[in-house]
Amino acid sequence: MRIITLTTDFGNSEYVGAVKGVIYSICRNVLIVDITHNIRKFDVLHAYYVLLSTHKYFPKGTIHLAVVDPGVGTERKAVVIYTDDYIFIGPDNGIFSFIENPKEIYEIEIPEDASKTFHARDVFAPTAAKIACNLKLNLKKLDTFKKLDLKPKIIGNRIAGKILCVDDFGNIITNIPNEMIDADFGDVIEVKIDNRAFKMRFVETYGRAEKGELICLIGSGGFLEISVNQGDASKVLGIKGGENIEVFNIYNKG
Amino acid sequence: MRIITLTTDFGNSEYVGAVKGVIYSICRNVLIVDITHNIRKFDVLHAYYVLLSTHKYFPKGTIHLAVVDPGVGTERKAVVIYTDDYIFIGPDNGIFSFIENPKEIYEIEIPEDASKTFHARDVFAPTAAKIACNLKLNLKKLDTFKKLDLKPKIIGNRIAGKILCVDDFGNIITNIPNEMIDADFGDVIEVKIDNRAFKMRFVETYGRAEKGELICLIGSGGFLEISVNQGDASKVLGIKGGENIEVFNIYNKG
Amino acid sequence: MRIITLTTDFGNSEYVGAVKGVIYSICRNVLIVDITHNIRKFDVLHAYYVLLSTHKYFPKGTIHLAVVDPGVGTERKAVVIYTDDYIFIGPDNGIFSFIENPKEIYEIEIPEDASKTFHARDVFAPTAAKIACNLKLNLKKLDTFKKLDLKPKIIGNRIAGKILCVDDFGNIITNIPNEMIDADFGDVIEVKIDNRAFKMRFVETYGRAEKGELICLIGSGGFLEISVNQGDASKVLGIKGGENIEVFNIYNKG
Repeated sequence: MRIITLTTDFGNSEYVGAVKGVIYSICRNVLIVDITHNIRKFDVLHAYYVLLSTHKYFPKGTIHLAVVDPGVGTERKAVVIYTDDYIFIGPDNGIFSFIENPKEIYEIEIPEDASKTFHARDVFAPTAAKIACNLKLNLKKLDTFKKLDLKPKIIGNRIAGKILCVDDFGNIITNIPNEMIDADFGDVIEVKIDNRAFKMRFVETYGRAEKGELICLIGSGGFLEISVNQGDASKVLGIKGGENIEVFNIYNKG
Repeated sequence: MRIITLTTDFGNSEYVGAVKGVIYSICRNVLIVDITHNIRKFDVLHAYYVLLSTHKYFPKGTIHLAVVDPGVGTERKAVVIYTDDYIFIGPDNGIFSFIENPKEIYEIEIPEDASKTFHARDVFAPTAAKIACNLKLNLKKLDTFKKLDLKPKIIGNRIAGKILCVDDFGNIITNIPNEMIDADFGDVIEVKIDNRAFKMRFVETYGRAEKGELICLIGSGGFLEISVNQGDASKVLGIKGGENIEVFNIYNKG
Repeated sequence: MRIITLTTDFGNSEYVGAVKGVIYSICRNVLIVDITHNIRKFDVLHAYYVLLSTHKYFPKGTIHLAVVDPGVGTERKAVVIYTDDYIFIGPDNGIFSFIENPKEIYEIEIPEDASKTFHARDVFAPTAAKIACNLKLNLKKLDTFKKLDLKPKIIGNRIAGKILCVDDFGNIITNIPNEMIDADFGDVIEVKIDNRAFKMRFVETYGRAEKGELICLIGSGGFLEISVNQGDASKVLGIKGGENIEVFNIYNKG
């Protein structure tokens, strides 16, 4: 039995229920697993990070259906991307930018009677269900899909990166990977977010800081993360996701 | 294997978990699917719209269990309603008003040891589980169930309707169906909500408007919807659901 | 097929999805059921109450995985507790204080490559999946686990208790059980919360009060609960959970 995962900004609303109903109506022999429906509304970067950091924990063959889709009903394409291990389905707006070696890319033909505002239900869910049950599909081969450039850059003595998102605890997650960080636990590091400067200790885990202390660490996705122990860093710093961040003097000089 | 769907105002709290535990304890051979648990608390109109717009996407034979129940433990009845395609279970307070041709209606007998505050766990869940597994039930035949009058009316040059609910994106959903609207994309229409007047373009989909523009369109449920492109119309207009709405000069004169 | 339930403070975020992916990757023949992911962040008392009041509604043999874990990555133990009917897995921080007669208690060995911030994914989920599928585990026998003293006390003419949590409706749930309450429906009772005094009627169920009336009743978990009919008692009284509460003159003198 195949797994179909769902990642959306639908907020556990009835739109999730409708998607599941459509899938089960087409293909009963499937297991639907919610990754999350709490992507920040319309936030492509947030969806990108969530997919990047969670898709690999699912069994090979899993179909990952992701819908964060401010352009629904306009010219943006609907795509299916096959990799060695997974199948990704969703709007072609950059949420799948982490895919490095796609094996095959397809465009989904939009049925004429599809709602203009709810392709998750009328386009993406039927496609996922048909793939899961090996039913006939109307797909057109593509050469490429939309990829955003989300790699941080080293400029002089700093790393210039981006805040990808805020997690449910208020932790601020950047695109700066573990491998770029050359700091020891306890080091004080300096960051600038949209030109506001902050200093904080680099620690191993949340519980190694004082309650309420602003810290940074390598989060569970393998990226530099700014946090407040038992608090909400995003509220303390006023961060929503998408901001630029600079990190000073801690990149690996080796 | 039967599907039981859940629609409640329990907010993904442990009350949902308890309901699922009870169902699986009585009937393991069933698939439980959440439609949503984010119905606005105690809001019968919201539950009505969500059930109306999603129940039909599930396979025939699905049992739809819905609990938005401000009258729990009082005299309101607990009902089971069979239609040609589905079985509905919940409090008899109007949430099932969209059912047009019930085949059979039953009242559930409340067990003496049922909690006075949690019939979802102690009354509705056991009933759904027993129906799913064809176990013996204590039901009493009824002739009718509670129906609210939720049809809009045409009065002179306007449609007098109601705002049924606000969706998770802040879109304002009315009870005015597609068939009553006689406008072209791009037309400016006028509405009054509780006597406050607004003008907005009628568009095909969200992405056809400027970011932040107040618009209206036919939503995925087939009803007139007021929206802000990539924004939250309910916050902009201060709407919660249940308000009266009048729409001018766009109804089908044909 | 075994059931694994999940109770966390992850808020339906992608952290829940990652946990499910890990479980299904290790053991496909299992049914995962969410109890709730809306435990107040880092709130051990809230998790304690939710587990106490819901675990027993699941079939015998169910594995209850619970992660509210402010001490993740520090010295706190990771435990597995077997009772006659269930298996509990989570951090040893008091969330399982309701367990009266554990049959066996084990410590989970933390793998060296586990993330320091996400033991739910890297420690607890693999343990639950291996138990569900009878795979080999690295466990060390323990004699005891952490238990908080959460029993209310009778002092003179009052019961000195604690507010365990606020539920999704804003109802304020105490640790004072039904058996300690000797009041009739309609009696006015007096409580003090952190030395602020309130009077309210003791009723059978929410709908027996005026809309907006402050009341108390025996909630569905069998404990004294303070509520506002169709309102949010926690907002009205400014309660978050963890406060001390005294109840006067209504304990059972028998």
